[in-house]
Amino acid sequence: MSAALLQHPFMSPDGLAATQAEALVEAMLAFELALAEVQEARGAVPEGASQRMRELLAPHPFDVGGIAAGIASGGNAAIPFVKQGRAALPDALKRYWHQGATSQDVVDSALMLLLKPRFAAIDALLARCRTAAIPLMQQHAATPMVGRTLMQQALPLAFGVKVAHWALGLEQARRRLAAVELPVQFGGAVGVHSGWADQGLEFMDGLAERLGLAVPVLPWHTERQPIHALATALDAVAGAAEKLALDVALLTQTELGEVAEPAGEGMGESSSMPHKRNPVRCALIRGATRQVHGHATVILNAAAQPLERGLGEWHAEWAPLVDAALLVEGALEQAAILLEGLEVHPEAMVRNLAATGGGIMAEPASKLLTPVLGQEAAKRISAEAAEAARESGRPYAEVLGAHPEVAGRLEPETLAQATDPALYLGSSQRQVQRAIAWLEET
Amino acid sequence: MSAALLQHPFMSPDGLAATQAEALVEAMLAFELALAEVQEARGAVPEGASQRMRELLAPHPFDVGGIAAGIASGGNAAIPFVKQGRAALPDALKRYWHQGATSQDVVDSALMLLLKPRFAAIDALLARCRTAAIPLMQQHAATPMVGRTLMQQALPLAFGVKVAHWALGLEQARRRLAAVELPVQFGGAVGVHSGWADQGLEFMDGLAERLGLAVPVLPWHTERQPIHALATALDAVAGAAEKLALDVALLTQTELGEVAEPAGEGMGESSSMPHKRNPVRCALIRGATRQVHGHATVILNAAAQPLERGLGEWHAEWAPLVDAALLVEGALEQAAILLEGLEVHPEAMVRNLAATGGGIMAEPASKLLTPVLGQEAAKRISAEAAEAARESGRPYAEVLGAHPEVAGRLEPETLAQATDPALYLGSSQRQVQRAIAWLEET
Amino acid sequence: MSAALLQHPFMSPDGLAATQAEALVEAMLAFELALAEVQEARGAVPEGASQRMRELLAPHPFDVGGIAAGIASGGNAAIPFVKQGRAALPDALKRYWHQGATSQDVVDSALMLLLKPRFAAIDALLARCRTAAIPLMQQHAATPMVGRTLMQQALPLAFGVKVAHWALGLEQARRRLAAVELPVQFGGAVGVHSGWADQGLEFMDGLAERLGLAVPVLPWHTERQPIHALATALDAVAGAAEKLALDVALLTQTELGEVAEPAGEGMGESSSMPHKRNPVRCALIRGATRQVHGHATVILNAAAQPLERGLGEWHAEWAPLVDAALLVEGALEQAAILLEGLEVHPEAMVRNLAATGGGIMAEPASKLLTPVLGQEAAKRISAEAAEAARESGRPYAEVLGAHPEVAGRLEPETLAQATDPALYLGSSQRQVQRAIAWLEET
Amino acid sequence: MSAALLQHPFMSPDGLAATQAEALVEAMLAFELALAEVQEARGAVPEGASQRMRELLAPHPFDVGGIAAGIASGGNAAIPFVKQGRAALPDALKRYWHQGATSQDVVDSALMLLLKPRFAAIDALLARCRTAAIPLMQQHAATPMVGRTLMQQALPLAFGVKVAHWALGLEQARRRLAAVELPVQFGGAVGVHSGWADQGLEFMDGLAERLGLAVPVLPWHTERQPIHALATALDAVAGAAEKLALDVALLTQTELGEVAEPAGEGMGESSSMPHKRNPVRCALIRGATRQVHGHATVILNAAAQPLERGLGEWHAEWAPLVDAALLVEGALEQAAILLEGLEVHPEAMVRNLAATGGGIMAEPASKLLTPVLGQEAAKRISAEAAEAARESGRPYAEVLGAHPEVAGRLEPETLAQATDPALYLGSSQRQVQRAIAWLEET
Repeated sequence: MSAALLQHPFMSPDGLAATQAEALVEAMLAFELALAEVQEARGAVPEGASQRMRELLAPHPFDVGGIAAGIASGGNAAIPFVKQGRAALPDALKRYWHQGATSQDVVDSALMLLLKPRFAAIDALLARCRTAAIPLMQQHAATPMVGRTLMQQALPLAFGVKVAHWALGLEQARRRLAAVELPVQFGGAVGVHSGWADQGLEFMDGLAERLGLAVPVLPWHTERQPIHALATALDAVAGAAEKLALDVALLTQTELGEVAEPAGEGMGESSSMPHKRNPVRCALIRGATRQVHGHATVILNAAAQPLERGLGEWHAEWAPLVDAALLVEGALEQAAILLEGLEVHPEAMVRNLAATGGGIMAEPASKLLTPVLGQEAAKRISAEAAEAARESGRPYAEVLGAHPEVAGRLEPETLAQATDPALYLGSSQRQVQRAIAWLEET
Repeated sequence: MSAALLQHPFMSPDGLAATQAEALVEAMLAFELALAEVQEARGAVPEGASQRMRELLAPHPFDVGGIAAGIASGGNAAIPFVKQGRAALPDALKRYWHQGATSQDVVDSALMLLLKPRFAAIDALLARCRTAAIPLMQQHAATPMVGRTLMQQALPLAFGVKVAHWALGLEQARRRLAAVELPVQFGGAVGVHSGWADQGLEFMDGLAERLGLAVPVLPWHTERQPIHALATALDAVAGAAEKLALDVALLTQTELGEVAEPAGEGMGESSSMPHKRNPVRCALIRGATRQVHGHATVILNAAAQPLERGLGEWHAEWAPLVDAALLVEGALEQAAILLEGLEVHPEAMVRNLAATGGGIMAEPASKLLTPVLGQEAAKRISAEAAEAARESGRPYAEVLGAHPEVAGRLEPETLAQATDPALYLGSSQRQVQRAIAWLEET
Repeated sequence: MSAALLQHPFMSPDGLAATQAEALVEAMLAFELALAEVQEARGAVPEGASQRMRELLAPHPFDVGGIAAGIASGGNAAIPFVKQGRAALPDALKRYWHQGATSQDVVDSALMLLLKPRFAAIDALLARCRTAAIPLMQQHAATPMVGRTLMQQALPLAFGVKVAHWALGLEQARRRLAAVELPVQFGGAVGVHSGWADQGLEFMDGLAERLGLAVPVLPWHTERQPIHALATALDAVAGAAEKLALDVALLTQTELGEVAEPAGEGMGESSSMPHKRNPVRCALIRGATRQVHGHATVILNAAAQPLERGLGEWHAEWAPLVDAALLVEGALEQAAILLEGLEVHPEAMVRNLAATGGGIMAEPASKLLTPVLGQEAAKRISAEAAEAARESGRPYAEVLGAHPEVAGRLEPETLAQATDPALYLGSSQRQVQRAIAWLEET
Repeated sequence: MSAALLQHPFMSPDGLAATQAEALVEAMLAFELALAEVQEARGAVPEGASQRMRELLAPHPFDVGGIAAGIASGGNAAIPFVKQGRAALPDALKRYWHQGATSQDVVDSALMLLLKPRFAAIDALLARCRTAAIPLMQQHAATPMVGRTLMQQALPLAFGVKVAHWALGLEQARRRLAAVELPVQFGGAVGVHSGWADQGLEFMDGLAERLGLAVPVLPWHTERQPIHALATALDAVAGAAEKLALDVALLTQTELGEVAEPAGEGMGESSSMPHKRNPVRCALIRGATRQVHGHATVILNAAAQPLERGLGEWHAEWAPLVDAALLVEGALEQAAILLEGLEVHPEAMVRNLAATGGGIMAEPASKLLTPVLGQEAAKRISAEAAEAARESGRPYAEVLGAHPEVAGRLEPETLAQATDPALYLGSSQRQVQRAIAWLEET
């Protein structure tokens, strides 16, 4: 489909380039050659045979179109690939090619080989996000802004804490993804190494080592916990990036203007409206991550696969898995740039803190007045003063201090301090410190 | 991503070929040229301008790679496309290009133009399925087979009824999809035809007519009911095809063998096991339809789009919509072949009817005995006889007739008839007739 | 689970009250009694027997706890219910009870009976929404506000158009839901009316008529298109309500303040912050509708059911279906109140229109200047003036008129008109009229 | 809704009983009392106050109906609960009640307290499954059965390996769930402990310790990685149970009959068909787990929550989370019984191994013949013999040995051994040993 214009904009260009059909063929070949080597090392293939195979097949021009066409009859790419490979070998070697393997061994392992560098790239992008977030947190550990709950102004917090939440979400997801294993697959037709009672598991373990993949307990053709763990960990990263994009988009609203996406040649331009700067990176992130949730849903519903081989359940995993990885990588490329170049407007934060005429400080004001006037009166007066301040445009502390029931009972300075948002940031600074310490844990 | 080997196998090759990036560019151009024509017809563009635009741009080699690259900064394909188009026009025409339109007008309309022939292809495939199913239903309106509930043998039915269910599901989904409208999109920057108070809606209606799309009540930039209707109707087709594939796969199991996928050169071959014929078409169908559910889930979760333009919600729709259509089309290409060439094995059905030694006929036998022996005894004896028949391998009617409490009280022929599955097909024939009548309704 | 505190808040209280376990038992009983009546009318049950059954069972105190307990062994509520019913009948009537039916006939039909009044309630709520929206649309057909795309200020539109979008979405979903059929289920053990070749379909049709349900073509035990249509139509309503809630929540943000939820005793109070008024109805709507998408996803993935009876796929439908209906009904109860009592603040809309110093009018200003200064200069100057207006706080038209390249070339009045958002509402009024005409179509 | 009859059958009765509304109220109270205690220990509440609160409120009859009703205006259960609690306290204590907390602190922490024993119960059930599986694996480490790929007979494996896959899936999911943290929530209105700069985080940490919950890095009101981890880990368990149920259901099919659900009074009875024994436990498991996927999908789509408090996204989590836990627990109660009492029919496995007349042994036969006859001939002859064996009903080895090209060239005994499924189980035994070793790792 018009992938280049509809789907790829959300995917990582690097990721896309590294996962083309040729890359899958290469990964399948890497599996088969490693298999021969492992078997040769254990005497199941004549000495020198695996080396000969590599010499013949590494430079062999596999016909990708032919492989694609062959899927229609066999149901997966391994079958036509194995045929092409066998045809390219001399008779004496044919029987050692794909020996003891089944097509799912090839496809599953090749997918893991494709995903491994994508996971590394995602990890690196998440590390970039972390690196970008920490100085932002430090710099804004005491920058006051209004906190918003249910999108209504609530009480102040430091902007650095908001950044900390983004960073913690991304880093939690990073650690989760980093703990996910990408196992090799090798079990033969029904997963029990038919014909290889003694050596089957050794082949499997050897393959894992040679290919740099994890060693599973057993072959996992229809025991898809590894795929579930992998797909949901990817989705967790998507969720963390999506939170960042949602917040930035909300804070970027014209009326708020507290942050802005990094400026860039043509970024966010509208074709018709010269004044606009659209949060395009946020749109790209959210466009990508929502698709990831759909792909993850496919995997959730395909965890149970029948008997020794899925009948569609397995096949349904392929595109969602790879697409999800590329979308997550794409979203993070935007997220990293966003965090590295985020424009922060503390003056807009101050302006918005004043939008309710100080109403957001009614809660601490009320607390201050309570010992003097009682809880009831304190609540009433602090709210009345907020209303009056908003209407008159005068500072909240001033209006409050002039209230007949307050006047003369509290020092103006005390009132001013108690109603200064910048002095009411709670544990913001400590939170930032704690978050940084956690982020920097190795 | 390795789309050609992992994703395309499940998609329609025709559909894929017709929805490449170039096709989207063509559709965007069709939109813009139609817009100029419609505006010219209403005096909003100088006479001859639209014709001139067409002459210049129809043969213009748009740079698809450049458009793809431009998405990164603008967020969608229309922005760089419009730029390229404008650059290719003489100054005098530039201002009439994309006049009054916004990028979402272009993309949404272009998507509808891409989807229209896909929907027609899907409709035609569903009609092929219906055409294939009717004779199968007629032929097997009285072919006895065992019905299975919770996958346990239950009571007999005619195979034709099972086919009727497949056909009804597919046809219901076809009618639902056929009723879905593909509306044009045209509203300008915020959907109210800014600057075109009098003519905006006329332009929209005229565009719909010229492009062969439906006329919406209003522009629907963030009112996505049309997309929801369309995506869920596609998913309904997926569900109907998936039911067919699930049933065929189950009936094809080695131990059942009641139907088989149409034989075909190399179809379903296993790379290692010469005796196997895998139900590959069923696997391809189920592989495709499960992905459709994931895409539909993205659309369900993107129905609510903020204010006048989605911020990611819209962007997230594109690939899932087109992918879903191509996957449904791909699944139906397999479904049509499956129904057209399905191998039916009535002898295996007869064999399986006997698998329980007649136990599945214990229910009618019990009914027959009730007036003679009372309900309790009837139930007990009919069950005992089934057990004995299975153990001894003798026919159920014979065992039942020889039972001491039955012997001499019922004619052997009566017993034989009452326990003959072929005579216990209920309303099967009438159901087949009724289904055909409904399928043939225009 | 703590349903009363975690789940029910999102569901309609009326709907909840009407769908308790007792109501399901009543619906199952209605099915069985109607079946006996239909069969008696066709001679399959002795005269008077159905009347006798009704007299005995209508007042019979079914043991709901016992039925619930019985599900563990049979897998659905019909099996223990049928047992209890049979035990309460005299021997002579026992065999006419549940005659020719299977448990899925009972459960599916009872579910349709439960859902029918919920669908009516949903329809009525949607009609209330429509009724509330029309005067709001009329009143605000020319109330200027800023349109926001990607949440950035773009160009003006009338608030009435935004209401029109809400109303159109809800009404489209209403019509879609109204067109969905709730069919009776009746087919017996394997769906072919075993033992009732001649009368099976007549029983089914008669039952539908007597119960006020739709007549299906055939029994649909594993042909679940009706369920798919129903669940996705519910989800469409959810999506339309969610769009309303999302927009209201965004417009209610402290910094925007363009609309507010209807005030109400204690509504939206915060436990700690006296100044807050949370958009609680929006939260309840969005809380409900997001759950509906999850339930719909279960149905999408259960469309394909094996052979003659689902093995879990069917069972998985029950709670999602009923929950989805109650959540949609609950969301609409909030939506109706929201639309009926929405507070609209045109003065805030005017204030926000001015937030960019007129920058949002740079596009029409540019259009006005183009014939005089050329496109390039027009764009540049209109943007510069916006910047200057924002910084100085002077009106955009004034700043623009004073620009050296503009001064003296255009009448101040012309400039003022061209940059007055209230005069730049495009087709807003016509859209409102068109939408109302469509909404009022019968 | 008719929860008792439609939803609860799939949920754990113990789990249901332990999560009623009263339990949530108790958990909210536990949170508030622990908060007072923690604050008292740090001097933020007068000495003795927390003890006094506990004395007054522990026996206080909270009005659950009133709390439920209050949710409509506040949006969550904590607001009316806190009001009731405050009203029950003397004036002097009122200000120390809910001090520094926000409603989300209460609800999130209470949910974690509700879930904790459910997670323990799930863990215990998974341990029961493991305990039941190990002897089954040992006993059947060499029990031959046919492996089925794409539901077609493929090659033999030991039944113990299949059990190993079930056990590995469940145990992997168990370990994943056991690693998930249930963190306390405490941050106050906007998550920064407003007014408690120094002590806020200490309160949070102290609360976690006192309540037996995990210590989060920071409050996580809109940083929902913990919820994502928890929900997807639950879904992983669901997937593992679903695989078990799918396999058992398939193997239980009348025509296969290789295993059966444990017999039980009335279990799996059909209301009309005396011969049937439905795999009801499998249906209950699959009915439950499919709903879990829907709930998980809600969580995936709610990972991104805006600014300092979700507007519906948070609310949408509650029911799906608790329902998912109860459904998983319910599914596992069935799974444990299934594994503990599974009926295994090795004789049926032997019968099915012979179903293809030995065709499934064509692959090893072909391997045996290859050195003697060449690969081409070996393949052809082994397949021809399979066909002949099936048609004639004679043993495969005999037919093969009698083939003109084979006769006299291989010992009958060699042939018999090479085509004996029981001698062709590959690494089955080693796999069983390896799986047990892994399962028994602490």
